[in-house]
Amino acid sequence: MPAVRAEMRSVRRLAFGLAMGLCLSVSGVAAGVSAAAEPARKVIVDDDGFGLAQWMLLQAPGVDVLGIAVVSGDVWRDEGVAQALRGVEIAHRTDVPVLKGAVYPLLNSEKLTDRWEALYGKLVWKGAWMKQWVEPTAQGLLSYHAPDVVPDLPEGNPVTKASDESAVLFMIRKVHEFPGQVTIIATGPMTDLALAQRIDPSFAGLAKELVYMGGSLNPQQVRGDNAAAEFAREFANSPRREFNFRFDPEAASIVFRAPWKRIVSVPVDPSTATEVTPELLRRLAAANPAFADAVKRKQPGFPLWDEIAAAVWLDPKLITKSEELYVDVNSQFGAGYGDMLSWRPGYQPDMDEQKEVVVRSVDVPRLEQKIVDLLSRKLPPAKQVH
Amino acid sequence: MPAVRAEMRSVRRLAFGLAMGLCLSVSGVAAGVSAAAEPARKVIVDDDGFGLAQWMLLQAPGVDVLGIAVVSGDVWRDEGVAQALRGVEIAHRTDVPVLKGAVYPLLNSEKLTDRWEALYGKLVWKGAWMKQWVEPTAQGLLSYHAPDVVPDLPEGNPVTKASDESAVLFMIRKVHEFPGQVTIIATGPMTDLALAQRIDPSFAGLAKELVYMGGSLNPQQVRGDNAAAEFAREFANSPRREFNFRFDPEAASIVFRAPWKRIVSVPVDPSTATEVTPELLRRLAAANPAFADAVKRKQPGFPLWDEIAAAVWLDPKLITKSEELYVDVNSQFGAGYGDMLSWRPGYQPDMDEQKEVVVRSVDVPRLEQKIVDLLSRKLPPAKQVH
Repeated sequence: MPAVRAEMRSVRRLAFGLAMGLCLSVSGVAAGVSAAAEPARKVIVDDDGFGLAQWMLLQAPGVDVLGIAVVSGDVWRDEGVAQALRGVEIAHRTDVPVLKGAVYPLLNSEKLTDRWEALYGKLVWKGAWMKQWVEPTAQGLLSYHAPDVVPDLPEGNPVTKASDESAVLFMIRKVHEFPGQVTIIATGPMTDLALAQRIDPSFAGLAKELVYMGGSLNPQQVRGDNAAAEFAREFANSPRREFNFRFDPEAASIVFRAPWKRIVSVPVDPSTATEVTPELLRRLAAANPAFADAVKRKQPGFPLWDEIAAAVWLDPKLITKSEELYVDVNSQFGAGYGDMLSWRPGYQPDMDEQKEVVVRSVDVPRLEQKIVDLLSRKLPPAKQVH
Repeated sequence: MPAVRAEMRSVRRLAFGLAMGLCLSVSGVAAGVSAAAEPARKVIVDDDGFGLAQWMLLQAPGVDVLGIAVVSGDVWRDEGVAQALRGVEIAHRTDVPVLKGAVYPLLNSEKLTDRWEALYGKLVWKGAWMKQWVEPTAQGLLSYHAPDVVPDLPEGNPVTKASDESAVLFMIRKVHEFPGQVTIIATGPMTDLALAQRIDPSFAGLAKELVYMGGSLNPQQVRGDNAAAEFAREFANSPRREFNFRFDPEAASIVFRAPWKRIVSVPVDPSTATEVTPELLRRLAAANPAFADAVKRKQPGFPLWDEIAAAVWLDPKLITKSEELYVDVNSQFGAGYGDMLSWRPGYQPDMDEQKEVVVRSVDVPRLEQKIVDLLSRKLPPAKQVH
């Protein structure tokens, strides 16, 4: 465990003992943020894994990543935690705590998903529950295994450990510690956020904002290549279905009816103009030797998803089109289970759903350049791992 | 009542007395179809009103319109029947029977729709139940009235009467009379077809095919004008919702799980590239003085909907893009009530849903020309109305 992380943990314990409140965090200092005129922007990422988005935020100047929470989704939580630990190690940011979120969605389960598919048809992607593709697919399958199994990571296994604190309690504690200052960027299922909101009804209102990747309005296949055509399977016959919502629909509905000050939504729609091409991977590998090995192991063909959420939070000028819509999620166990529901103002049912800023498109060349630029930045010195 | 209609009625009574069967119809002769080498293509239209689509079919060479059925939807059935009677009078085709279909959908109702909206948000269009727009809209509202009220028609009230035979029984009788030869073109809610299928399980299998306008995959606003933007409200936040399905979801689901030999689907998607522009109305009015007065009363701005279904049946070469999808309708009373469900082959649940040919786009200039050409054709002599 790195020395800084041990120090951080004792600080967190103290803060927890003070019952969510007035203790001044040292995380900004620990993160090595330069003392600029602007105070560092505080953010917690909650994701079902670890990817370019987290590196972008860790590398961004003037940003204080308070913690990296991990929830089950694309992979089980424990595998995602390992990815996150390795990710912060590669970025020399073991000062940032990795926090364990929920292993299981609120109501949904693998067995329910089997029954649902028998009634309503096969899902294209099921994350941790995925055993096989319905039809031939270039994208590789992750290994199917039990929740507590952590396969060896291609980028190497981490040597550091996750925090002992629950991701849910950590997020509650941090919004109390920095009221109105913490952005939550949620790029996986929303189980942790729903739990936080039901544990502490003031959670959402104390955060600065929620920025999330999830949901789907009516995406169109933009790019002509085979990878784009394969990913279009996910929305062509289910334009309102997206994995993060579908894995835990009840959680997403709880979150969207919580009193956030502001919500920014990045649905699938803007992602269809993007792709992790071999060329983009080459540019990223060339940007910084520290990330090169891990970047070279990444599979091309995927759209950019979480990266858009991170990027538009860092630089809202990347957004080329957005609109304000009321949003909720269909939590009824039927054909539309997990579907994004949206309403133009005036049509919404007023069941506590919120008006969200929904990103419809982004400037793709600038987005790619943003990712390259952030990854190019010099890393802080590696922390000593004892 | 025109002499020909009186004659037709006695023929129909005789046929009905023979219990759906072997009686040779004279409708082909009555319709004045020329004796060509190709036998006339037999079709029954079932719609919630009357429009250009019916005129196209009545005017088409080599087509025998066996009957025009009317069901509630955009307007109550009785108002639609009046429109249809007036429509065949204008076309000098009072030889074609107009048949009364269902007044009410199977389960859905105005009261249920009010409760649904309270839970799930305002619908953009509710047909016969529509009292007001949610937001300012150029398109005029039809009058809200009781099911048995028939307002004066702008194009003049009909002097002829509808058949005494139920549209449902008429359709059953005709598919028995001409097994494998009758196309059903359904451009309104599917209540009549569902009733026919549950009265006679051999109904769908005895028809030649079902061609319908209804449902919605993921339409995009194509045209830039205000009318197109206003119609985009119907799908922008509900890409799978379309009025014909939504008015009677259970009926549509019954119909799509019936054993048709072939189903051709015209969802909203191809319609967004079309519009009844003032220019198109001018061309149609100039095409034939017989239709000019009624055409001039038509409101511009609407997409072409039913006209696409009629046109691609008359000339499949108008289809520029189609795909084969399994289709059903969400009949669960929830946020997705009435939504079109579709599956790429391999993903379908195999709950008796059928593979349909789904029209994705059409050749719009050729479609417009087709409508103009058909309306340009010389009408048969007007029948004497006693």
